[in-house]
Amino acid sequence: MSSSSDDNDNNNDVDVDVDVDVDVDDTGLHKPNCGGGASEGGDVTMELGRIIDGKAIADAIRTEISRELIGRAADVDVVVDGIGGGKIGGRPGLAVMLVGNRADSATYVRMKQRACADAGISSYLETYPDVDGVTEEMLLDRIRRWNDDDDVHGILVQLPLPPKIDEGRILGAVNPAKDVDGLHPSNVARLFSSDTHDRTHDGERLDWTDLSSVPFHLPCTPQGCVELLDRIGCDIEGKRAVVIGRSNLVGLPVAMMLVHRNATVTIVHSRTVDARDVVREADIVIAAAGKANMVKSDWLKRGCVVIDVGINAINDSTAKRGYRLVGDVDYDGGAKDVAGWITPVPGGVGPMTIAMLLRNTYNSWKRANK
Amino acid sequence: MSSSSDDNDNNNDVDVDVDVDVDVDDTGLHKPNCGGGASEGGDVTMELGRIIDGKAIADAIRTEISRELIGRAADVDVVVDGIGGGKIGGRPGLAVMLVGNRADSATYVRMKQRACADAGISSYLETYPDVDGVTEEMLLDRIRRWNDDDDVHGILVQLPLPPKIDEGRILGAVNPAKDVDGLHPSNVARLFSSDTHDRTHDGERLDWTDLSSVPFHLPCTPQGCVELLDRIGCDIEGKRAVVIGRSNLVGLPVAMMLVHRNATVTIVHSRTVDARDVVREADIVIAAAGKANMVKSDWLKRGCVVIDVGINAINDSTAKRGYRLVGDVDYDGGAKDVAGWITPVPGGVGPMTIAMLLRNTYNSWKRANK
Repeated sequence: MSSSSDDNDNNNDVDVDVDVDVDVDDTGLHKPNCGGGASEGGDVTMELGRIIDGKAIADAIRTEISRELIGRAADVDVVVDGIGGGKIGGRPGLAVMLVGNRADSATYVRMKQRACADAGISSYLETYPDVDGVTEEMLLDRIRRWNDDDDVHGILVQLPLPPKIDEGRILGAVNPAKDVDGLHPSNVARLFSSDTHDRTHDGERLDWTDLSSVPFHLPCTPQGCVELLDRIGCDIEGKRAVVIGRSNLVGLPVAMMLVHRNATVTIVHSRTVDARDVVREADIVIAAAGKANMVKSDWLKRGCVVIDVGINAINDSTAKRGYRLVGDVDYDGGAKDVAGWITPVPGGVGPMTIAMLLRNTYNSWKRANK
Repeated sequence: MSSSSDDNDNNNDVDVDVDVDVDVDDTGLHKPNCGGGASEGGDVTMELGRIIDGKAIADAIRTEISRELIGRAADVDVVVDGIGGGKIGGRPGLAVMLVGNRADSATYVRMKQRACADAGISSYLETYPDVDGVTEEMLLDRIRRWNDDDDVHGILVQLPLPPKIDEGRILGAVNPAKDVDGLHPSNVARLFSSDTHDRTHDGERLDWTDLSSVPFHLPCTPQGCVELLDRIGCDIEGKRAVVIGRSNLVGLPVAMMLVHRNATVTIVHSRTVDARDVVREADIVIAAAGKANMVKSDWLKRGCVVIDVGINAINDSTAKRGYRLVGDVDYDGGAKDVAGWITPVPGGVGPMTIAMLLRNTYNSWKRANK
């Protein structure tokens, strides 16, 4: 679970230690401005150190999805606040492919399936524990059948796949409309190709102010980062945002989403000279480098908003397992006291990844039943 | 040919007023460092105002392509410096689709075909002047036949298409291996998805230091921008680069190419606050906003490298046609004297677009004959 390279994200899953109860609480939905504090010194009354409670926000989103689903689906057995009954036959379905024997992958898949069940989404699991026996053709055949299955609205290939399997070939075989991880080239290209502008694929402008309205699948972790900004009421437009890390799973897609939201975005990485000085310009910092405690308090502009995607295991003899998890930002080393808002690790971005997966699956089902 | 929005690039073609003679001269291939000057004041002996002669560089590249082609192809009737004879049967072929009656589009197509002829590349033109009569199915049928035609290595759909045609549908039908404009989602996704890193589509790392070695098609204008930096010997790695404009034809792809080349990249656009201050941080400025003379001399760090993609018509009663073309950078208003290197308009990026189109077509032919 630890990662060493700054551009490393072998796995879309980060600290998914979610409470699986559907929680109707909507804590965390404050609506102040964010990050726009004076660049140096400035307003000494600025509120600092506010925690972005990703767990509470993810729970609130999961509850929203459940409620909407109950309002629409005829075939959902979850009841929240006595609301039930629906309009669309069936219910959303997520198909999950798990290849190999990685314990962490199995845990992530279990969490995703449990989250589906809680939300009223069906899930189907296909496992291929025999790495030696599995072939690309077997996996492609399974995906093709899911592509054709009207009960399947989302297809998730748990990553990483074994090295012998061509990941690009498998991911590229998923029907883009069911690609709830947002990794198919068609979805990648639509994120990149800037449907905010006139030259869209389908002739209409997109409204990026509501990510859940985007008519194709955005990858879950970066989507969760932007959703956190929205939920704390951060006005992204015109802000300077710095994304640390340039992975195709987190750094680059979150940078594009912030561009579409009219932030002025800088991408920082391992070859950046004087990264501290660059990060200090940011009203919004997205740390997705995979380096434990890399971003120190003196890298941060006072009052900025910090979204920490990192999840790094560091040795800790006082911990039960001999290690503990920390982010890319030196939270306890002072970063928390300089930032206006900051996500903890765990309990920040991690729970959002699953919430966004549920949202993508639910949206896919809605679009299929339009 | 004038453009008003800052995110506007309706057309990949910019100032393609190329001299069509193959020129064996290689002027412009200087090899100094670039853009790394002291941020304020600093080295007063720094050389300023050097012109990046895009025309000469484009001609040199076209000559390189011709020479290589003559060395490989059995069926090429261009002879340069007495070199001829070849190893591969046939020659590269570019198929061009022109829909409608736009005079500028017809001019661009003519230039591209003439450049092909000069380089020893066959070109095939299919025109659809009757906008009322043309259908998407007709165009798709034509593209499918080109996709299957072994004599066609590049397919170019001249943009813009008439509004009644779904551009995304047409561009998406082109075989990605023949998509020499780099606009197919598969090519867009490969540029974006960062094949520099471990999680590649085909398991190998890409060498972005030589753009002509990238095994898929990069769009021509942004590729030309980076090629200009390479040809003046600009060491991109670790530099701060600012891209002004976020179009999917120029701004975003050039930003991604610079990220892959290890620059620290900031994307500036119409909603950027204090754009001047952001641009002043840059060692490398790529101006692709489509606003005449927007970037003033006091926006530039002394000694920076400026690549001006803009091509804007402004009124000029002294000019024969009543207007003249200027870039996005206020070249004559002092920018030239602050920059270390700068492209003129016309004669900067424009000629590179066609040179990169020839290169993509040539590379496509090489890959098809491997």
